[in-house]
Amino acid sequence: MRISFIGAGRVAHHLAAVLSQNHQIVQIYSRTLEHAQALASQVAAKATANIAELEPDVDLVIIAVSDQAIAEVIQQLHAQFTDVLIVHTSGSTDIQVLAEVHARAGVFYPLQTFSLAREVDWQATPLFVEAVQPQDQAQLIQLANSLSSHVYAYTSAQRLSLHLAAVFACNFSNYCYDMAKQVVDAQQVDFSLLYPLILETAQKAVQYDPKQMQTGPAMRGDQNILNRHQQMLEDAKREDLKKVYNLMSQQILQSHQTKA
Amino acid sequence: MRISFIGAGRVAHHLAAVLSQNHQIVQIYSRTLEHAQALASQVAAKATANIAELEPDVDLVIIAVSDQAIAEVIQQLHAQFTDVLIVHTSGSTDIQVLAEVHARAGVFYPLQTFSLAREVDWQATPLFVEAVQPQDQAQLIQLANSLSSHVYAYTSAQRLSLHLAAVFACNFSNYCYDMAKQVVDAQQVDFSLLYPLILETAQKAVQYDPKQMQTGPAMRGDQNILNRHQQMLEDAKREDLKKVYNLMSQQILQSHQTKA
Repeated sequence: MRISFIGAGRVAHHLAAVLSQNHQIVQIYSRTLEHAQALASQVAAKATANIAELEPDVDLVIIAVSDQAIAEVIQQLHAQFTDVLIVHTSGSTDIQVLAEVHARAGVFYPLQTFSLAREVDWQATPLFVEAVQPQDQAQLIQLANSLSSHVYAYTSAQRLSLHLAAVFACNFSNYCYDMAKQVVDAQQVDFSLLYPLILETAQKAVQYDPKQMQTGPAMRGDQNILNRHQQMLEDAKREDLKKVYNLMSQQILQSHQTKA
Repeated sequence: MRISFIGAGRVAHHLAAVLSQNHQIVQIYSRTLEHAQALASQVAAKATANIAELEPDVDLVIIAVSDQAIAEVIQQLHAQFTDVLIVHTSGSTDIQVLAEVHARAGVFYPLQTFSLAREVDWQATPLFVEAVQPQDQAQLIQLANSLSSHVYAYTSAQRLSLHLAAVFACNFSNYCYDMAKQVVDAQQVDFSLLYPLILETAQKAVQYDPKQMQTGPAMRGDQNILNRHQQMLEDAKREDLKKVYNLMSQQILQSHQTKA
């Protein structure tokens, strides 16, 4: 397939890199030409910061921009790509945002957290595809199957639930690590001491039911420790961490009350 | 060394198992005899549910009970073990809780989350030791070194900070997984779809600074998605999840404001 990308961020980088192994990446568009060039040079594509310069002779356009920008981008693209399949890569954006403007609309959503610095294991990454037209859906499934062994045809509503769950599982767990680091940093204690704990907690969650794996003072209903931790956060004037500590502890306590 | 255990829970199980490879586990005490027997049979020790039956001729007594029970247990043990080193294994309990009653008091704290179903990688598990008497401290360091390559002499105050950080890094991240599972369960979506995301998020946190690795709608300041997710949780009548979603999003947003 001949594929062009709109956007040159983390998702575009990883997706263009893996797709370039078996497909031709034609152009990379970014509002910032240097960003487009940086990615284009890695996948043997041309870079542009001018939408009018995008070549219409492609099989697929992948929009990998921030969710807020998708509606504006499809308005700008539609006229040039009237008969080309255009997909976005967002978990939270309804296919309708494209389909209202463009007949051959689709979605190609990889459920993973991307950083430029880390390789992506595409075979293990679940991919969720959706398309307005059945033949486009078939084509997206085929493309997805060439990358991953976990491909699903999901509606926008299903994808939205999944993305909400991903915010809890990924964004919020990462913020928990961030808060933990702030606690140890304040004591000049090395955050790396917590690495085995972080990795083991994640390993346990994917091997067992996380609810069954819950440990800690809130799960045990240990009010002495809860009070002491809260006092420590108050003494450190960390009202933000204390709020999270109280809310999470309260909820863990409640959901494990029958056990305690 | 000749070692007896007070308690037969998760920590006692794993610690007795690994110590039994190079030391003699003499007795396992638990208020519930069957619990003591279950562990004793695995480490070639004797089981008892009667404190008076504990043999005083040992080199070390390890208290591995719930934090709340430690003060009561040391009262019961002291008379029988006047000249024996007694340690607890708690991150949040001051050595003073033992030292007020018992001269040869110490702490042997493994920073890890234990489940009966999973093997512990002791070599990678940080161990924190403390003792009132220098010769006891030296002995605990030696014992710890035989298990782990990460042994630290920490004061009770340092250990308490570390344990507070561990609550964020382990207990709260696990609760995030639990909440994510509740979100997908409600949609009959398979939680295992989130496994690659959970593992990758943890891997990134131990390779880079988690704050730099933060992703998601709150980090990007994407108010549309934040509102939609909040609405979904409200529609699902999940006031509990919505409270966590709002608080965490607000704090992530604030701490990344300069980036957005």
